[in-house]
Amino acid sequence: MKPKLAGLGFNLLIIKVLLKFNFQNRNTLVKMSLELTKDIFEALLAAVEQKNASYIRHTLEDMHPEDIAEILYEMDTEPCIYVFEVLDKEVCAEVLAYIDEDTRSEFLENFSPEQIAMWVNLIDSDDAADILQPMPLRLREKTLAYVEAEKAAHIEDLLSYSEDSAGGLMAKELIRAQANWTVVRAIEEIRRQAAKVQRFYSLYVVDEHNILLGRVSLKQIIISADHTLIKDLYEEDMVAVKTYTSIEEVSDLMQKYDLEAIPVVNARNELVGRITIDDVVDVITEKAEQDRQIMSGITDDVDEDDSIFQLTRARLPWLVIGMFGGLLGARFMGFFEKDLALVPAMAFFIPLITATGGNVGIQSSSIILQSLANRSSIFQGNYWQRLLKVLLVAMINGLVISLIVLGFAWFVNHSLRLGLTVAIALFFVVILASMMGTITPLVLHAMKINPAVASGPFITTANDLLGLAVYFSTAHFLYN
Amino acid sequence: MKPKLAGLGFNLLIIKVLLKFNFQNRNTLVKMSLELTKDIFEALLAAVEQKNASYIRHTLEDMHPEDIAEILYEMDTEPCIYVFEVLDKEVCAEVLAYIDEDTRSEFLENFSPEQIAMWVNLIDSDDAADILQPMPLRLREKTLAYVEAEKAAHIEDLLSYSEDSAGGLMAKELIRAQANWTVVRAIEEIRRQAAKVQRFYSLYVVDEHNILLGRVSLKQIIISADHTLIKDLYEEDMVAVKTYTSIEEVSDLMQKYDLEAIPVVNARNELVGRITIDDVVDVITEKAEQDRQIMSGITDDVDEDDSIFQLTRARLPWLVIGMFGGLLGARFMGFFEKDLALVPAMAFFIPLITATGGNVGIQSSSIILQSLANRSSIFQGNYWQRLLKVLLVAMINGLVISLIVLGFAWFVNHSLRLGLTVAIALFFVVILASMMGTITPLVLHAMKINPAVASGPFITTANDLLGLAVYFSTAHFLYN
Repeated sequence: MKPKLAGLGFNLLIIKVLLKFNFQNRNTLVKMSLELTKDIFEALLAAVEQKNASYIRHTLEDMHPEDIAEILYEMDTEPCIYVFEVLDKEVCAEVLAYIDEDTRSEFLENFSPEQIAMWVNLIDSDDAADILQPMPLRLREKTLAYVEAEKAAHIEDLLSYSEDSAGGLMAKELIRAQANWTVVRAIEEIRRQAAKVQRFYSLYVVDEHNILLGRVSLKQIIISADHTLIKDLYEEDMVAVKTYTSIEEVSDLMQKYDLEAIPVVNARNELVGRITIDDVVDVITEKAEQDRQIMSGITDDVDEDDSIFQLTRARLPWLVIGMFGGLLGARFMGFFEKDLALVPAMAFFIPLITATGGNVGIQSSSIILQSLANRSSIFQGNYWQRLLKVLLVAMINGLVISLIVLGFAWFVNHSLRLGLTVAIALFFVVILASMMGTITPLVLHAMKINPAVASGPFITTANDLLGLAVYFSTAHFLYN
Repeated sequence: MKPKLAGLGFNLLIIKVLLKFNFQNRNTLVKMSLELTKDIFEALLAAVEQKNASYIRHTLEDMHPEDIAEILYEMDTEPCIYVFEVLDKEVCAEVLAYIDEDTRSEFLENFSPEQIAMWVNLIDSDDAADILQPMPLRLREKTLAYVEAEKAAHIEDLLSYSEDSAGGLMAKELIRAQANWTVVRAIEEIRRQAAKVQRFYSLYVVDEHNILLGRVSLKQIIISADHTLIKDLYEEDMVAVKTYTSIEEVSDLMQKYDLEAIPVVNARNELVGRITIDDVVDVITEKAEQDRQIMSGITDDVDEDDSIFQLTRARLPWLVIGMFGGLLGARFMGFFEKDLALVPAMAFFIPLITATGGNVGIQSSSIILQSLANRSSIFQGNYWQRLLKVLLVAMINGLVISLIVLGFAWFVNHSLRLGLTVAIALFFVVILASMMGTITPLVLHAMKINPAVASGPFITTANDLLGLAVYFSTAHFLYN
């Protein structure tokens, strides 16, 4: 595994590792944090060098696969391969599921399709599809040939859905029950499938054509008498989504109705999979992160560990766009060179004007983003009344700021005319920037573009230009 | 219930309502979206006016409580009270849990403590504590007097924890099992407690002193033979948190290890509660929203529906701070009035300088925020190497932008000296803003202040001043 931090090395790696807490030793801490220091890490590296398989197994196999993945991130590829050779194959398979896509793809090039298939057999179909999805088609086909038939079919099905849809997020593993079964029969089915389905909270009830009818919780199964019919137990009131439902909608629904899992049906309402909340939590986190990056003017999903080239490529585009905005502003001010030569102090307030416009615009768009995110609280239509409210808030804010600035310019700069110019311009800048910050995300949303763009550098640049135009027009008017 | 949109009215309210899908009618859509138009809503209002209880019950009781809450938001207080009088009390209790705190507190003033206690009895202790928490102490005590003893004790316990800790987020409802029980005995316990605990996925295994030992999943209970001992079934490898663990850490742990629930223990490792993933999802969403607001320079948690006063109060502080930053910039530029009078074109590039500094600073802090959010991927120490990397990226970005600007100033403005001034200043601004954007969030984080502040208007303002200082110093140096 190529270390993500290649070339930077590390001093002290602190990873919280959960140790199993002991039945005998009941007074220990429930969750223990192990500081994996350089020493322990190097002992592990030495064990790899000395091919001390039992030490590696002993150290790693008690850890959560996610923690093992983090340790492997700090190793070179060779030691990682050795670790995968000695560790229990089920542990390896789970670790693979936790490694990020790019690193995993590169790492798996070191193994045969047969080997990869062995791990794929041991994990849920959604994780398996994630592993196979980025592979070259030939390698994917070769690997699938070694995967057991049912799982291979599941994976091929999952690979056919868009990554942004419920179909792309779901797992095929779930437990079906027929309406005419008894509780005992359902329990038999659970026993039969328990090894295949890692976690489940409900049985999904289907008819003979696999059409979804409802769900029975495990709790209901446990508390019901053995010969109760599923028909009499199951809830019909339930939320299901279609394979083509967007993952945003899935996440909104699960969040709104506090669901731990949601079944997925195809166009014929046949039950084809289910999505669990842990996958949706990842979607929610990614979406928030993506929005923040858009607001910060970063084009790609980069982080500190990425290469200098990747970081530059993600950052430069918006910087260049902002720069051209600035140059455009410079051109525009060129028209007012004479005014500036006459009253150089006019230049002093340029940053005040542009910064205020930017701040107001971002505040406004942020409030609209919030409304758009909590879709439920949006009342459709009524745009005029919403804008009226935005206008009123802007007028109050604009008035307060303008009056302070007027006072400052008057008393400190002793120039009533300049003070008036700045104050009047500022008032209108606040109003215009509020309007732009409010309308832009709504328009973007209607155009199905992520409205978070409206809080990014593009709008800040546009607001700068708007502010300059208002300021210099006001000045030109008042000084001539 | 006071409508949140008071005074603005509404045109067309679209709410997605999940209808139960029918066993008989198996070809209908699984999830149906009902557009609740003005007509349907007015029919409901008319039913309230005519005291048509059966129509209201029929229309609302099939809906999810969350959907009912949304409809009530659109009504005045009087009709809401009537709806609560006629609806099934369990439905009312659940609806209450979905209403936001402020609206709920106001609404509950219309009911007697006895009435409130009846609803509190019907919901989980964590939701109940949320309802009682904002009440005046006297009313809270009066209400608790009517709540059944065990639940009242639970609620009082929960109210004693900070809202930001695991203790404040947990519910008391959970199912305990003793290690020496058989599966049959555990199932009896589940049956006994099933009505009290709404949803559960595991039994928590404790010793005779209520010390947490491990967990058994419901799946394990179902698939195990009746006389298996819990001792032989339960997992010791588990994650638990302390009552004082911060909710951020709880959310990180549950996200990292894909947990649907996490047990909470006190300082003596006694099991005192558990937190379910749906509550944590809310925490994650709120945190993302809060970060976005901080980045946008909004001080309070406001949304579009809030009053003009609330909106102004949340927005004005940062605007005023930004304004003083702008005035400080104006004062600073005052020192260069002579230079500006000599070369008015110097002013043209002020927005370019400040905007670039702002953009670069926010990009840099955003990348650090990402590292801080994915705590696991941070390698401690090594600050110098991280800064070196930031410096290299900044130098590349700065060089590209400076060269473009130099070309522009040269060819378009025909001024090599001005072009050089702007280009050199820009280069250093990019580097300094990168450094500031990188270091500020790290320092804030170390000081336990939310590092998202570093992407907000405060840093933008500071970057503006920095940019101006660099620009005018460069100009002064090159022109004198």
